[in-house]
Amino acid sequence: MRTTYAVGVDVGGTRIAAGLVERKGRMLKEVRALTPAEAGPFAIVDAIIDLITEVTAGVHPGEIAGIGVGLPAQIDFLKQTVEFCTNLPLAGVDMRSLIMSRVRHPVAIDNDGNCAGIGESRFGAAKGVRDFVMITLGTGVGGALFFNGEPYRGSRGLAAEIGHMVVRLDGPPCPCGGKGHIESYMGRPAIAAAGRAAAAEYRGRAIREQAGGNDERVTAEDVINAALKGDEIARQILLDAGEVLGEALVGIVNLLNPRLIVVGGGVGESCPFLVERAAGVIDRNALAGRRDVRVAQAELGNDAGALGAAALAFDEHDSREGLHR
Amino acid sequence: MRTTYAVGVDVGGTRIAAGLVERKGRMLKEVRALTPAEAGPFAIVDAIIDLITEVTAGVHPGEIAGIGVGLPAQIDFLKQTVEFCTNLPLAGVDMRSLIMSRVRHPVAIDNDGNCAGIGESRFGAAKGVRDFVMITLGTGVGGALFFNGEPYRGSRGLAAEIGHMVVRLDGPPCPCGGKGHIESYMGRPAIAAAGRAAAAEYRGRAIREQAGGNDERVTAEDVINAALKGDEIARQILLDAGEVLGEALVGIVNLLNPRLIVVGGGVGESCPFLVERAAGVIDRNALAGRRDVRVAQAELGNDAGALGAAALAFDEHDSREGLHR
Repeated sequence: MRTTYAVGVDVGGTRIAAGLVERKGRMLKEVRALTPAEAGPFAIVDAIIDLITEVTAGVHPGEIAGIGVGLPAQIDFLKQTVEFCTNLPLAGVDMRSLIMSRVRHPVAIDNDGNCAGIGESRFGAAKGVRDFVMITLGTGVGGALFFNGEPYRGSRGLAAEIGHMVVRLDGPPCPCGGKGHIESYMGRPAIAAAGRAAAAEYRGRAIREQAGGNDERVTAEDVINAALKGDEIARQILLDAGEVLGEALVGIVNLLNPRLIVVGGGVGESCPFLVERAAGVIDRNALAGRRDVRVAQAELGNDAGALGAAALAFDEHDSREGLHR
Repeated sequence: MRTTYAVGVDVGGTRIAAGLVERKGRMLKEVRALTPAEAGPFAIVDAIIDLITEVTAGVHPGEIAGIGVGLPAQIDFLKQTVEFCTNLPLAGVDMRSLIMSRVRHPVAIDNDGNCAGIGESRFGAAKGVRDFVMITLGTGVGGALFFNGEPYRGSRGLAAEIGHMVVRLDGPPCPCGGKGHIESYMGRPAIAAAGRAAAAEYRGRAIREQAGGNDERVTAEDVINAALKGDEIARQILLDAGEVLGEALVGIVNLLNPRLIVVGGGVGESCPFLVERAAGVIDRNALAGRRDVRVAQAELGNDAGALGAAALAFDEHDSREGLHR
């Protein structure tokens, strides 16, 4: 018999969310807590266990298919180990075993970008699409790849670092140490820097106002808010970023010939005009036959990660039980 | 019972090659002819049929698993139709049916880059590797993608146009109409242009000499030959191209996390130092955990396409017969 619920956990650098999710993707209950990032891996595991306990309270254990956990880390999916983790002290930590030893359920871990992709694939903007690329625009730029209906993780599970592809040799520095990568143009720090430069001049007064009158404190959100309120300078900063994104996606479309590109992440979700600009560039510049690719905004917002992690738990359960979804 | 031979046909813009190939990749016989590019699709089919007839002469039809044909065209592999073809008049032509109606054997068509990738995968540099990227450096820059042990063709079979990914926004024009694509730096025309610029000055005298003393006639091969004879200026042109290739491959490594990159094509195969330079850039600049990717030169040279087309014919035969390879 098929079980009724799975728990999806989405571990972020700042917050952890856990949801109790039905097979069809309805999230019945969701709880959140701050990530104890400074307190070490065991404190993070404790926080995850607390949320799982809270969200499953009153549910019969036999009704739970398993726990899926999305981590902001590079995961060897086959070995189920954390290989690298920039923002949390999880590298080399056997998160799966640590969590599994404290709950009665099977646990599967995956990269947070893959979880968001699985979420959008099963319940959101990419429902029913076999070949798509998800790109998440936030502080960093990441994503997920889906080929033939399955997430593609590469030879060691480290694929889909879409933000770290060059778009301009010798371009501005990237947090990864490279130069001119997509993230150097599209990450929140890059948008904030462009906003600060504008806000230091008269033309950027609307952006400066968003930052309480202090141009040195301008954030990416200030630029986005000014643009959403109709400021043309702020809008232009984001359209320029959309232009760069479009040219980068032309390359990805020519390389991978996807049916769909889903743009998510906080920046992607709050800036439809940026996504439209990128789509326009693809429409003009991709090679013939590939321009029918659809570019869509993600639909699940903050819930994508937890929903995708839950879907992963259902999948692992079903494959253990020999069921097909 | 398993059949003994397949015929692999490699259709190029200039030449067509057909080989009689054993299951293990030994090419027993190979014949070539010029491609009647100007004479229309039926003449091209005639030429292919003549070569198939010649190469299968004396072989019992029951011993032949089928015919694989690699075309310099964009193929919808599932529908087995030619979608686009730049150098030959084959777009929209039902090549598979035209050939099949004239031979007694099943026919499968695929893109020539995919065929070369299948060849290297089965019999060459990528033997036994499940996740790899093949990049072919020639007049154009193309390639093939292998994920989970299978060629990946994208949603419409148009994937792997590796040459048409941006590496420098607003860079030099690309034959596709784009700007700053990999092919704008690495294609034969780009190498020849750099060679002509050098040959017009004293420093490029060795390159000029390769072109019979006329700097305006310098080809990519002249640059390569001068470099192979030890000329530092020619070598530097190719090392600069290798540097650009390396930065582009860093992005592909970060995106796809392949185990191996196979560099083929006439330029790739004749310039080991260019390939080494690109490998060095990956080693320095790829994200952590991905630097164990191996960069290797293709091993099958001109035969890759025909061998891969033959492997495709064996695969199609075996899947029809319910056999597993």
